[in-house]
Amino acid sequence: MAADDSRSRLRSAAVAAFAERGFHGTTTRDIATAAGMSPAALYVHHRSKEELLHELSREGHEATVALIRSAVAGHDSPTEQLHALVYGFAIHHARGHTQARVVNYELASLSPEHLAGIMALRREIDELVRGVVDAGVANGEFDVRHPRLAAAAILSLGIDIARWYRENGAWSPEEIAEAYAEIALRIVGRPRRGATRRRPRSAGTP
Amino acid sequence: MAADDSRSRLRSAAVAAFAERGFHGTTTRDIATAAGMSPAALYVHHRSKEELLHELSREGHEATVALIRSAVAGHDSPTEQLHALVYGFAIHHARGHTQARVVNYELASLSPEHLAGIMALRREIDELVRGVVDAGVANGEFDVRHPRLAAAAILSLGIDIARWYRENGAWSPEEIAEAYAEIALRIVGRPRRGATRRRPRSAGTP
Repeated sequence: MAADDSRSRLRSAAVAAFAERGFHGTTTRDIATAAGMSPAALYVHHRSKEELLHELSREGHEATVALIRSAVAGHDSPTEQLHALVYGFAIHHARGHTQARVVNYELASLSPEHLAGIMALRREIDELVRGVVDAGVANGEFDVRHPRLAAAAILSLGIDIARWYRENGAWSPEEIAEAYAEIALRIVGRPRRGATRRRPRSAGTP
Repeated sequence: MAADDSRSRLRSAAVAAFAERGFHGTTTRDIATAAGMSPAALYVHHRSKEELLHELSREGHEATVALIRSAVAGHDSPTEQLHALVYGFAIHHARGHTQARVVNYELASLSPEHLAGIMALRREIDELVRGVVDAGVANGEFDVRHPRLAAAAILSLGIDIARWYRENGAWSPEEIAEAYAEIALRIVGRPRRGATRRRPRSAGTP
């Protein structure tokens, strides 16, 4: 229990410090101090600053793989799959924007072995999205000239939310997610005609 | 002449160092050494590391404002203006990807006064793009429900090129720029007629 709490405090402190000063501008002492611990106590949980970064990165990427898998498994048509996965991907990058920035901008700070593992997860994400785009092209739901570039652009849009999203900004994560799901469908040549009445968030009278 | 050459070497060294280790992970000594100069020589040209970052940032943002203004001024219809500005914006972020990452990811490292100036340039960029989107909606060329979010997404796509672009990657800056210009027109509900190979949707015999 106490160990779990320490690990969680260290992770939060590391996310904040890496986001503010970058991986190379942060010391293990900075992280330990922000977590209310001594540098020695940090080493009880993590062998190095890089190991902490890797844990954050793996956790973020595994969550992304899981949400995309679930969006694909939960829907039948490529149109619905793409809508659901972009919606979830956008929410994930808006709500977890600070960690997402660290995860996406500090890849080069990982050790070669750790980076190789993370790149395998990123390839899995790319392939899942590309699979949905290709399936939509194959069955005629989508009309797109460069499926790989379209898939890259759709992921890119979601990732960049973490850069510009502000908690006190004009749009909620849900509004961004709904708009981006529609934009993704436009990118693959499948605008949802007329209605973007979405799944009700929690309709008053169901 | 020699002074210009020193300034240019310092700028290149600063871009490389900030991109690799972040602003806070870089010392003025790192930059001077990479430029083949002494730390004292750096101070002949720049009062601080932050001043160098600001110069890079202002230069990058002014180039972006100029290219967007020229794309808008050089074309009559919102469709052509949007195509031209996204094309130029994408090329700029692919060719200058290292500097563009520094410029976009290290904003928080600027002094409050410098940041205020850069934010004014960013607002100008936003307003130029939004103006084109609004003009296209007003004259019926575009069909878009959330013009502000569509404009934000279009800029976001271009900025994120700097994160993922690789010089030895699958696509040239020109290929990315052409595909992204088409994607931007799709986002605003205006695919270029005939520019995509349309597949007939369920044309009878498969």
